[in-house]
Amino acid sequence: MTRPGGTSTAKVWKVHEDRGTDETDQLAAEEPMEIRVTSGRARGAKTTSLSVTMRTPGHDFELAAGFLFTEGIIEDKKDLLRIEYCTGPGVEQEYNIVSAILRPEVPFDPAHLERHVYMTSSCGVCGKTSLEAVRVRTRFSMPHDRPKVKTGTIGALPDRLMARQSLFAKTGGLHAAGLFDSLGNLEILREDVGRHNAVDKLIGERFLAGRIPLREAVLVVSGRASFEIVQKAAVAGIPFVVAVGAPTNLAVELAREVGMTLVGFARGDRFNAYAGRERILGSGG
Amino acid sequence: MTRPGGTSTAKVWKVHEDRGTDETDQLAAEEPMEIRVTSGRARGAKTTSLSVTMRTPGHDFELAAGFLFTEGIIEDKKDLLRIEYCTGPGVEQEYNIVSAILRPEVPFDPAHLERHVYMTSSCGVCGKTSLEAVRVRTRFSMPHDRPKVKTGTIGALPDRLMARQSLFAKTGGLHAAGLFDSLGNLEILREDVGRHNAVDKLIGERFLAGRIPLREAVLVVSGRASFEIVQKAAVAGIPFVVAVGAPTNLAVELAREVGMTLVGFARGDRFNAYAGRERILGSGG
Repeated sequence: MTRPGGTSTAKVWKVHEDRGTDETDQLAAEEPMEIRVTSGRARGAKTTSLSVTMRTPGHDFELAAGFLFTEGIIEDKKDLLRIEYCTGPGVEQEYNIVSAILRPEVPFDPAHLERHVYMTSSCGVCGKTSLEAVRVRTRFSMPHDRPKVKTGTIGALPDRLMARQSLFAKTGGLHAAGLFDSLGNLEILREDVGRHNAVDKLIGERFLAGRIPLREAVLVVSGRASFEIVQKAAVAGIPFVVAVGAPTNLAVELAREVGMTLVGFARGDRFNAYAGRERILGSGG
Repeated sequence: MTRPGGTSTAKVWKVHEDRGTDETDQLAAEEPMEIRVTSGRARGAKTTSLSVTMRTPGHDFELAAGFLFTEGIIEDKKDLLRIEYCTGPGVEQEYNIVSAILRPEVPFDPAHLERHVYMTSSCGVCGKTSLEAVRVRTRFSMPHDRPKVKTGTIGALPDRLMARQSLFAKTGGLHAAGLFDSLGNLEILREDVGRHNAVDKLIGERFLAGRIPLREAVLVVSGRASFEIVQKAAVAGIPFVVAVGAPTNLAVELAREVGMTLVGFARGDRFNAYAGRERILGSGG
C-alpha cells in the first residue's frame, strides 16, 4: 500500500572521479494508478477499467478528472457525481485505484473506447478511422487576441516554474506543468514522472473547480511539447503554451490548426515561437 | 501520407534579447502508428488493432516487433510470420499502420489484452489484478557476474551516445537509446520522440535478428529510467541499464528484484548506482 506522496528514499552508491560512497537518495515516486468509470443507472450501472497509468502519487482525483476531460469522456464538472479511491477488504493497493462515478444521464459507451477487433484479415478496409481516434475534439475556440504576453515575460517563465518545483530539485526526476497569467504570475503547479500526467493534474484541478475553459491561461511545461500536450491544452481552451524543450511537427501543426500560440526552447532571453505569434508583445510581434 | 523519416521543417520566429528573426527549423517528426496483430488460421484469422502510439517515423517494423515482444505478446522471432505496412486504395496513412502476422499456432487472445469491463458497480472485487497487469513476466535470468563494466567506462557512455545522435543535434527533441558492449563500444542506436519507443526499436532490431536474450549488453537511455524502461530491458534479458537522468523508485525496485544493474545521473566522471553494484569494476565495486 502506498499513501499519496511524491518521493521515496533509496540507498545509492555515488561514484565521482572513481571514488564511491554510500548515500541515501530521494527518488521520484512512481506507482500504477487505475482509473475506473462507473456509468448507468442503479442496477444497470457498469464499471469499466479505463486505463492504468504510471504516475507520481498525489493529486490523484485531479489526474483522473483531467484525464477523463482531456480524453473527451466528460465535458463538464456536472458530468461527475463523485470521484473516490476504491477501498475495502479485497483491495490491496488502496490508493492506486480511482473510481469516477458519472451522472446516470451522461452518455458513456465503453465499446466506443475499447480497441477495435476487426473480424477480417484484410488490413486495408479501415485505414483512416483508428488513426483519427487520436484526435479529441476541442469544444472551445481560442480568442484571437488574448492573452497578450511580453517577450521578456515568456523567457522568464521556465525559471519561475523551476523555482517553485520542490520535488524536482530533490530528485531531478519529475516533469512540471504550471499555469501562469499573462503577466507571468504562477497560479498553480503540478509535478509527475509523466509529462502528460502533470498536465492532466493541472487541468483536472481547474476542471473540478468549474473553471474551464482557461481562456486567459499560459501553460508552461518543463519538457518537450508533443502532440498530446498541445491537444490537452486545446481541449481545456488554453490559448498559449510554452515548452522548455522542443516541439514536434505534429504539435506545431495542431497548434496552428486550433489557433494556439506555441513557444519552444524558452530559456532566459531566448525562445522560439512556432505558432500564434500575434499574442506575443514586443519584437514587432 | 508520411514517408519514414525522422525530421520535418517548420517556419519559426526566433527571439533573442527582444529581437525576433524569421528562420526555418528542423523539428522531430511525430506521427501516430497503429500496430495490428493478425492471428489464427486462414478463414478464422482475426486482425486486432492493438495500440496507437505516437512515434517518430522510421524503424517501424522494429518498433512493432519490440513492442509486441516487451509487452509479452510474442516470445520469439519464429512467432512472427511477417511484419508489413498496410497498403491499398482504402488506406490513407500508408506508413502509419503496421501489421504483424503471427504464426497460426501462436496463442493470442485479444480479450486477454483488452481493458476489462466489469459488470458490477462494486469496485472492490478486483483490486489487485489489473494493477498486476502492468507487470510483464521476464523469461531470462540475469547472469550474476556479467557483464563487468569499469567505472570510467560508465561515465563516458552518455557522451558516446550523444556523439552518435544525428537527429537530436538537429532538433533537440528526440530521446535516444543505445546498446553498448561492456567496453563501452556502441553497437546500435535508435531515436524517437517517445522514450519507450526508442527502447522498443532497439530491442526490436535485436529480436528480429534472433539475438535475444541480450546477456552481455549495456542499455543507455538519454532520459530518465522509469519502471517501463527497466521492464522492457528485463524482458530482453539486458543486465545493465544506464540512464542520463534519474530513476524512479519503482524502476529501482524492479531492477533489484530481477538482479539488474541500474545506474542513473551518468555524466562525465559521475554516476549513481541504484542496484547491481557487483557488475561495476573499480571503486571497490
